[in-house]
Amino acid sequence: MAAQRLPAEVRFLIHGDEAQIAPELSKQAALKGRCEVRHTDKVIGSDEKPATAVRRGRGASMWNAVESVKAGEAVAAVSCGNTGALMAISRLILRMSVDVERPPLVVPWPGVKGVTTVLDAGANIDCDAERLVEFAIMGEAYHRAAYNIARPTVALMNVGSEEMKGHEEVRQADAILRSGRFDIDYRGFTEGDDLSKNQVDVVVTDGFTGNVALKTAEGTASYIVGELRGALTSTWLAKLGAMLARPALRAFIKKMSPPPAAPFLGLNGLVIKCHGGADARDFDQSIGLAVDLAQSDFASEIERNMTRLSAALAAAPESPVEEPS
Amino acid sequence: MAAQRLPAEVRFLIHGDEAQIAPELSKQAALKGRCEVRHTDKVIGSDEKPATAVRRGRGASMWNAVESVKAGEAVAAVSCGNTGALMAISRLILRMSVDVERPPLVVPWPGVKGVTTVLDAGANIDCDAERLVEFAIMGEAYHRAAYNIARPTVALMNVGSEEMKGHEEVRQADAILRSGRFDIDYRGFTEGDDLSKNQVDVVVTDGFTGNVALKTAEGTASYIVGELRGALTSTWLAKLGAMLARPALRAFIKKMSPPPAAPFLGLNGLVIKCHGGADARDFDQSIGLAVDLAQSDFASEIERNMTRLSAALAAAPESPVEEPS
Repeated sequence: MAAQRLPAEVRFLIHGDEAQIAPELSKQAALKGRCEVRHTDKVIGSDEKPATAVRRGRGASMWNAVESVKAGEAVAAVSCGNTGALMAISRLILRMSVDVERPPLVVPWPGVKGVTTVLDAGANIDCDAERLVEFAIMGEAYHRAAYNIARPTVALMNVGSEEMKGHEEVRQADAILRSGRFDIDYRGFTEGDDLSKNQVDVVVTDGFTGNVALKTAEGTASYIVGELRGALTSTWLAKLGAMLARPALRAFIKKMSPPPAAPFLGLNGLVIKCHGGADARDFDQSIGLAVDLAQSDFASEIERNMTRLSAALAAAPESPVEEPS
Repeated sequence: MAAQRLPAEVRFLIHGDEAQIAPELSKQAALKGRCEVRHTDKVIGSDEKPATAVRRGRGASMWNAVESVKAGEAVAAVSCGNTGALMAISRLILRMSVDVERPPLVVPWPGVKGVTTVLDAGANIDCDAERLVEFAIMGEAYHRAAYNIARPTVALMNVGSEEMKGHEEVRQADAILRSGRFDIDYRGFTEGDDLSKNQVDVVVTDGFTGNVALKTAEGTASYIVGELRGALTSTWLAKLGAMLARPALRAFIKKMSPPPAAPFLGLNGLVIKCHGGADARDFDQSIGLAVDLAQSDFASEIERNMTRLSAALAAAPESPVEEPS
């Protein structure tokens, strides 16, 4: 699918068990001359702990895929394997290009008007103002590259009413982003119920809040869909109704599914994580994302804004970041 | 509805415009001799800021209702008015009985197995370990009284995997609750997607995380229901199907609606907030909750566990709370 859709210069380096891969490749005419298989029968299991994967993963397909980015043989690695292991191996091999402990988890959040990019959804639990601004910089450049939107809007997750003005870190990050030092269309604060409305393109939050928000939304969606299924099989009439509405209900479920892939941001190299239950379409989309990101300027845009951030922090002792909290 | 259902000793003190209230009361035989109207035509608007309500609210119906609890004329105040104003007025008149800045916002979270009590959903943004333990104590006693569950299970909201162990405050609160000093069935950590599964009866979190989780869930639910509505009106066949399934779909929407009321916890007196869009059924349920709480020991149970907490904090310098973070 990807080979047919993408320009002929896009080629594939496939890491894994050649005995299993080669027969499949030979069935696909479009892949002729565009694939190279690097054999390994070592695999990192889906339950493997990140620490173990780092210690014992050398030579596994996932490891080799990331290594090939480091070596310059590939412009991006795409995997639907163990997320924690992929992140740990990517950090070890490629190293962070920014001063963040871990790549923020990027979540494509589906909603009424399309997709909002939410980060961090769980990798960095404690985030100070500077870290939140870094996420804003990375998320903004990523969203432009991934969705071809010239000037993505960015907001910080906060709580609503006047009396609840949010954490000190969030208010400081807001002040830095408002300073106008960055080439970012910053829109201020946003709230949890704005996510599904796609009020802005990029929502920035710490990994604790982001993880709770993501899992709460997943739990809510799965509860509602479960109850709906129960309701639509509760009576003969409801079953008949559901049967008539089936194409519409299928389209409804499909529309709510988030895009399957997101990158690890802030590494010296491109690694795309596709979700574990991916089918061929999902993997095709992930490859497309890798190509879009590889062809974009997003890495240099991030670097440019990061330099502005460092300069701002170094030059302005009266900057909000430096204030005692 | 409430008068018919509840014992004859339950009586009603109604604060508001007598000219509007009296004619309605006279229509209801069940209310004869059980209601007293205290006239005031002063009202606190739904958009009024809490600070303004406190400054200028004296004599308004909401103010007088809370005053009647303070004066011992009523055992509980029930209101579906302005939440922020009601909270501010309640704090001013009744004062906090515990060392918490504001009553935590309690949310009845509907799910697969019933209702989970979640707190704080937004009143106290920054919470240290001690505060989280106080919420656990208050939430546990409240859940027992409200749902007649002898031994509610309690958990702390956290993020999942091994590498993401959560904030220092959450880990400290976990250590205190695990100490066994409290008469609480504490179950450790829980995650966002467990809320709709009702894995435990009470989930404790800081007001920032709780507010984002609540609003995210509301946003997700409203997005899904909106998309579903769109899908079921997208074609003639789907419309016909939806018509046949209508009773089942109505039951589905009803099942997902959360209970309409929750108390402000930690005050010297009972104040029940019913949601703003309440109908007669919702208000009836809120009155029932007020009666259940008034008849229960929940206030003294909270006091007992709070005393244990103070003793533990004072007596044990090696306690996890005292460790430098």
